[in-house]
Amino acid sequence: MVYLIGAGPGDPELLTLRAARVLGAADVVLVDELVDSRCLRFTRGKIIRVGKRGGCASTPQAFIERLMIRLAREGKLVARLKGGDPFVFGRGGEELAALQAAGIDVEIVPGISAGMGAAAALGIPITHRGLANGVTFVAGHSARPVNWRALSEARTTVVIYMGLARLRAIAADMQAGGFAAATPACVVQDATLPTQRTVFAPLGSLAETVARAGLGTPALIVAGDVVANSSNHLQGAEAIHVRRYH
Amino acid sequence: MVYLIGAGPGDPELLTLRAARVLGAADVVLVDELVDSRCLRFTRGKIIRVGKRGGCASTPQAFIERLMIRLAREGKLVARLKGGDPFVFGRGGEELAALQAAGIDVEIVPGISAGMGAAAALGIPITHRGLANGVTFVAGHSARPVNWRALSEARTTVVIYMGLARLRAIAADMQAGGFAAATPACVVQDATLPTQRTVFAPLGSLAETVARAGLGTPALIVAGDVVANSSNHLQGAEAIHVRRYH
Repeated sequence: MVYLIGAGPGDPELLTLRAARVLGAADVVLVDELVDSRCLRFTRGKIIRVGKRGGCASTPQAFIERLMIRLAREGKLVARLKGGDPFVFGRGGEELAALQAAGIDVEIVPGISAGMGAAAALGIPITHRGLANGVTFVAGHSARPVNWRALSEARTTVVIYMGLARLRAIAADMQAGGFAAATPACVVQDATLPTQRTVFAPLGSLAETVARAGLGTPALIVAGDVVANSSNHLQGAEAIHVRRYH
Repeated sequence: MVYLIGAGPGDPELLTLRAARVLGAADVVLVDELVDSRCLRFTRGKIIRVGKRGGCASTPQAFIERLMIRLAREGKLVARLKGGDPFVFGRGGEELAALQAAGIDVEIVPGISAGMGAAAALGIPITHRGLANGVTFVAGHSARPVNWRALSEARTTVVIYMGLARLRAIAADMQAGGFAAATPACVVQDATLPTQRTVFAPLGSLAETVARAGLGTPALIVAGDVVANSSNHLQGAEAIHVRRYH
């Protein structure tokens, strides 16, 4: 049996009770590099780091999947701990498919996705009535095409994962697709962690302001009128926040 | 101080550790009717049910906000427990604004939104690469206009909250907006609870199949190619699932 578990957005207290219980019962825990090590205080079994940003060589996805299958076939209770939610840009679908193809039972334990965690930490009501028709989560790396014209017409709040490295191109593409340069926006690094930093700026000057502030990954971009409702947002000004989370 | 807390999608084990801790510390807990009462096992303070579907008269939103403000001004530590995530169609933005206008400190504790919970419970990888460009959460009641044409062009998975009562109109509007009648879709009632029931059918026959099955609220609609990847989905057939969650 393999559990694909969401570790939540960063703050280890945002683990679910179920995640904590399954981590405590697992024989082996395979954990992504981005997951805060304090999420592992519940584990009693063996811990294997399989992150892709570690000091040594990256761990290819196929290797992770083969390892899970081998451990499950040895009769081990395997927990696979992934940042955020396993099904929101976490390759959880690929891991689920590989495990099912090998005839292994899988249970998904959902986690607080980074976008939800960031909205809570910044006080941004992402679906606020009258300001947004809903919310859309997309990925910002180039392998994932985004139809910005369609999203600007849908008038949902947009949350962009893994977009910091391409922020300048994304902001330009969004404006070419119909998002106003004045669209309230922000970039938040390390949302829900003590190292959280946020830059607020209109979409038209977001990339420049973020570059000046020197934000790093992991980071999320949030764009839409609701961003101006953030308790941290300063009307009419570009602002860099280093306020601690909690 | 008021905490706006997400209770998660239904399963009380999907509360976060932080939610459980704050509930235990609160002097008063104001709880929505839809929240499973087992989420309250951590509370030691007074519990006030403020749901809108209770046996007696509904509790208007303005009354809830005034009550929170009064209790906070009395120096009480107030926890406001809402289904799902406070900022995803939960009126959390309105409550945050009312509390801030009254000068009261607010912290948001995010929760697993119903859409994430349903995706996990059904094994639907909602952002699976190649099948979806992301995921969009919208509301299905008529007060919230949805630009289906734009969403069909965006090619994100669509999760519709509170749409069951208008399912026939929504499915028709989606098809008029460019979603194919063959789009894999499902309706799930009571996601992540023992009473969970799911109906899978192509969008074109979804309303009819759901009516035959007699699903009730609370329910979510999920539409997009990823739905066919659900571990519960039967290829090429309309299917009604009563499989227990876990």
